[in-house]
Amino acid sequence: MGRFTFSEEGAIDKSRIVSRWRTRLHEIIFEAETPAGKAFDTVLLLLILASVLTVFLDSVGSFRARHGTVLLYLEWFFTIAFSIEFIARIIAIGKPLRYVFSFYGLVDLSSILPTYLSVILPGSQFLLVIRALRLIRIFRIFKLTRYLTEGAALIQALRASRYKITVFLGTVATCVIVMGTLMYLIEGERNGFTSIPRSIYWAIVTMTTVGYGDIAPRTVIGQTLASLIMIIGYGIIAVPTGIVTSELAAIRHKTEISTRACPECGAQGHDPDAAHCKHCGGRL
Amino acid sequence: MGRFTFSEEGAIDKSRIVSRWRTRLHEIIFEAETPAGKAFDTVLLLLILASVLTVFLDSVGSFRARHGTVLLYLEWFFTIAFSIEFIARIIAIGKPLRYVFSFYGLVDLSSILPTYLSVILPGSQFLLVIRALRLIRIFRIFKLTRYLTEGAALIQALRASRYKITVFLGTVATCVIVMGTLMYLIEGERNGFTSIPRSIYWAIVTMTTVGYGDIAPRTVIGQTLASLIMIIGYGIIAVPTGIVTSELAAIRHKTEISTRACPECGAQGHDPDAAHCKHCGGRL
Amino acid sequence: MGRFTFSEEGAIDKSRIVSRWRTRLHEIIFEAETPAGKAFDTVLLLLILASVLTVFLDSVGSFRARHGTVLLYLEWFFTIAFSIEFIARIIAIGKPLRYVFSFYGLVDLSSILPTYLSVILPGSQFLLVIRALRLIRIFRIFKLTRYLTEGAALIQALRASRYKITVFLGTVATCVIVMGTLMYLIEGERNGFTSIPRSIYWAIVTMTTVGYGDIAPRTVIGQTLASLIMIIGYGIIAVPTGIVTSELAAIRHKTEISTRACPECGAQGHDPDAAHCKHCGGRL
Amino acid sequence: MGRFTFSEEGAIDKSRIVSRWRTRLHEIIFEAETPAGKAFDTVLLLLILASVLTVFLDSVGSFRARHGTVLLYLEWFFTIAFSIEFIARIIAIGKPLRYVFSFYGLVDLSSILPTYLSVILPGSQFLLVIRALRLIRIFRIFKLTRYLTEGAALIQALRASRYKITVFLGTVATCVIVMGTLMYLIEGERNGFTSIPRSIYWAIVTMTTVGYGDIAPRTVIGQTLASLIMIIGYGIIAVPTGIVTSELAAIRHKTEISTRACPECGAQGHDPDAAHCKHCGGRL
Repeated sequence: MGRFTFSEEGAIDKSRIVSRWRTRLHEIIFEAETPAGKAFDTVLLLLILASVLTVFLDSVGSFRARHGTVLLYLEWFFTIAFSIEFIARIIAIGKPLRYVFSFYGLVDLSSILPTYLSVILPGSQFLLVIRALRLIRIFRIFKLTRYLTEGAALIQALRASRYKITVFLGTVATCVIVMGTLMYLIEGERNGFTSIPRSIYWAIVTMTTVGYGDIAPRTVIGQTLASLIMIIGYGIIAVPTGIVTSELAAIRHKTEISTRACPECGAQGHDPDAAHCKHCGGRL
Repeated sequence: MGRFTFSEEGAIDKSRIVSRWRTRLHEIIFEAETPAGKAFDTVLLLLILASVLTVFLDSVGSFRARHGTVLLYLEWFFTIAFSIEFIARIIAIGKPLRYVFSFYGLVDLSSILPTYLSVILPGSQFLLVIRALRLIRIFRIFKLTRYLTEGAALIQALRASRYKITVFLGTVATCVIVMGTLMYLIEGERNGFTSIPRSIYWAIVTMTTVGYGDIAPRTVIGQTLASLIMIIGYGIIAVPTGIVTSELAAIRHKTEISTRACPECGAQGHDPDAAHCKHCGGRL
Repeated sequence: MGRFTFSEEGAIDKSRIVSRWRTRLHEIIFEAETPAGKAFDTVLLLLILASVLTVFLDSVGSFRARHGTVLLYLEWFFTIAFSIEFIARIIAIGKPLRYVFSFYGLVDLSSILPTYLSVILPGSQFLLVIRALRLIRIFRIFKLTRYLTEGAALIQALRASRYKITVFLGTVATCVIVMGTLMYLIEGERNGFTSIPRSIYWAIVTMTTVGYGDIAPRTVIGQTLASLIMIIGYGIIAVPTGIVTSELAAIRHKTEISTRACPECGAQGHDPDAAHCKHCGGRL
Repeated sequence: MGRFTFSEEGAIDKSRIVSRWRTRLHEIIFEAETPAGKAFDTVLLLLILASVLTVFLDSVGSFRARHGTVLLYLEWFFTIAFSIEFIARIIAIGKPLRYVFSFYGLVDLSSILPTYLSVILPGSQFLLVIRALRLIRIFRIFKLTRYLTEGAALIQALRASRYKITVFLGTVATCVIVMGTLMYLIEGERNGFTSIPRSIYWAIVTMTTVGYGDIAPRTVIGQTLASLIMIIGYGIIAVPTGIVTSELAAIRHKTEISTRACPECGAQGHDPDAAHCKHCGGRL
């Protein structure tokens, strides 16, 4: 019994220790406020940036030829480091499956899997495909967005103007499709407008004022229509700008309204120049 | 007499049934609020998108060579479907001629006619022209704009700023014509500026910051003037943006502030949810 | 004596008639409010547009080869018409010299002189130069700006923000000069950056997001720096846009402020929600 | 003793004279308000512009070949003039070392050193490097920013929106890296996307709507993805514009409305020229 009790107490102790340990781990990994959490986030951020840089250099032919072995070792170092981090996240979190199948869980997993797959699936003919898979690890960079919490007002402004932006994009899409088709009819296959999708691609390149010049109109009518598309594209940029600006101004206005509460009815949201509560008429 | 009465009643019944049937048809086709109307609109939208995609694929040479027959069948399927829809619209509407000669009526008609014309006018030498006619069916996409009713505020802002935008476009046009002519004189035919219209085309390409690079200045004076046009074009975009933004902000402001005046002190500018005057506390 | 009196009276009559005639002429030419003035302006506008179009077509080699004689006749027709208009303006106006040496007077004169000069200065070797002179008549289009009076608010906004825009342009100029010089050092003459002015031209082409592609960086460092210039140019456009927009909003705000005058002190410019005069405290 | 006293008084006199002389020099060089200071600044500005122009012309091969000697003399004239100015600044200022190691001190020094270095380090093989060093003198132009004090509101607006702009640039960077990598996988080395860094360079060129056309997608999937990047880049410009505009509007609003409160009714938001409360009429 004593032993049983001991074992029970030991279990409780152990469970306590594990629980504390998990709480501590959760604090380090998922919270950014504590010193330990901040340090963890900073190290992780630097590791992600370094691993992305490794993938970049690996894609440069001349660099890979000279430093291929170093890149391979670095690649495995990052993969193992991120694997440990992934396992630590699963242990630390209350609902592991929910994390694994969340957006960030999938991104985390897809940032370590390709390297392991390159071992399981050997063979020269698969190598190129595997190298391509490895590049998907670029999605590690999505982790960076975790560190961006300053964008709340921007997202709110974009969310508030989503209907107007949809209408705008719909108008642009219609414009681009009609113009692209007209240009296909006018310029034809001789001048590089070989199909309607390609003409629409040209119309997008032109309307967004990118203007590669790989396809360009050569007939007088084509150049006239192209001028029209350019001027529309040049002027129409005012519309999303106006939408976002007026939304941002409105959000700013709302947050600037005094936070005074009426002493009688407790209502808030009074204008800065209000002397009486707009709801009950009481003095502020 | 009984028979006559019966026939009369039958006629009334029939007319009633027809009337009901037409009302129901009108509801389905022209109204988007009822479940049936919504379903009809969704199906029509998908059909239009699919038919536009068919036209796109038909213009890609390699695709047409392989799947030409399937595209032809699809083409006829869409044409017959849209023809039935067109006839249904004529039956359902009170004033058919007004619809047929309205903008949407003409677009609807021009989206089905080319396919029929390709049968009536056979002959190998006409085929290419007919194929071109078929492409006009791209205007079907204009139907999409019916589904966009969210753009009211945008259109109002653009309408309110139409005079300012006209002045802006007039200034841009003058600028482009003068600059184009100057560049024709400076660069001349050797450097690709073969005529004034072509030089104006180049000025538009440059001022709207599209910059294809198919025509580019080569002399020092030409490049200096081109730099000036670029900076003007780059800075002047601020003008339409400023116009549209201040209009949108004004529209938002107007719709957000009620125009109620306080019956006691006469103050205005109360929030829409105000029950008491924010200045003197009087009841609104 | 009777005759002298008659002659004196005749002189007065004549002077009266001339005076009336001049007033009428002045009304037609310089005022746009009366029906006759409106008609004159419309006809003049159409003539200017037609003459500009003639100059355009004259510069297209293939068109001039076929219709050269018609263009020459048209050219002389426009020159004579504008000469008559020019003389009429001098007669109608009170201070002719002031008009001739004003901006519009010089533009009007320079739009008719080249054609006459082409007669006085014959000789095959001068012909090309004269043709070039003729093209200066494009400045006729400046007359179009007379018809643009809607732009007052725009000009006011641009005038109010001229200091901020100067600072902005100064910053852009400094940026473009430094970046251009750095690119000359990095890319060098092998990659098309043959001199600092040319590199600065490239920097302007890039920063204004025009991007011809006639000169493009090829080294890794050059492309990195170019990316930096692009992002600066892409983001910095927000500055003039913000300046103009906030000016336009301020102008709109000022014109929206109620035009109520204080019944006691007569002061204006009260806010829409003002109940008392902000100057003397009297009830509005 | 008398002599000692004299000498002491002389020392005080000398120190006074030196002190006055230094104060006067400081006034001329560092202050722009006095007439002498204004004249000094104007002359310096013109000298800087002339010296920058000399560097420009020196880089144009054909010009240097003809006027090389003149440019060399001018170069030495500017270097000596700026050296005198540099020494004068050190004498005039209270803490010379702090000036020398400040941003402007380093810029001033780096604008004279390269010419002297070209004497100390002779030898044909160093010449090109030295010529390159000489070009760094372009940083003289940074002095120009001293004359720009109008930009305070602009800088304040940019400072206030620095967090939002960081989030925006972070989003753009993530977008550009992911898109660049995807394009490397899709287009591959055959179509010019030879490495990930180069693909990212292309993504920046496209997203900022510069569009050189030196690298352009050729596959259908690549062109579709490129269209997406273009539309994102075209639309996303609205975000920094909106940020800066709303900041500028807020700054204008704050500086235009006095924060005075009515002593009787407590209302705020009075115009700067208000003498009485606009709500209750009480004296402010």
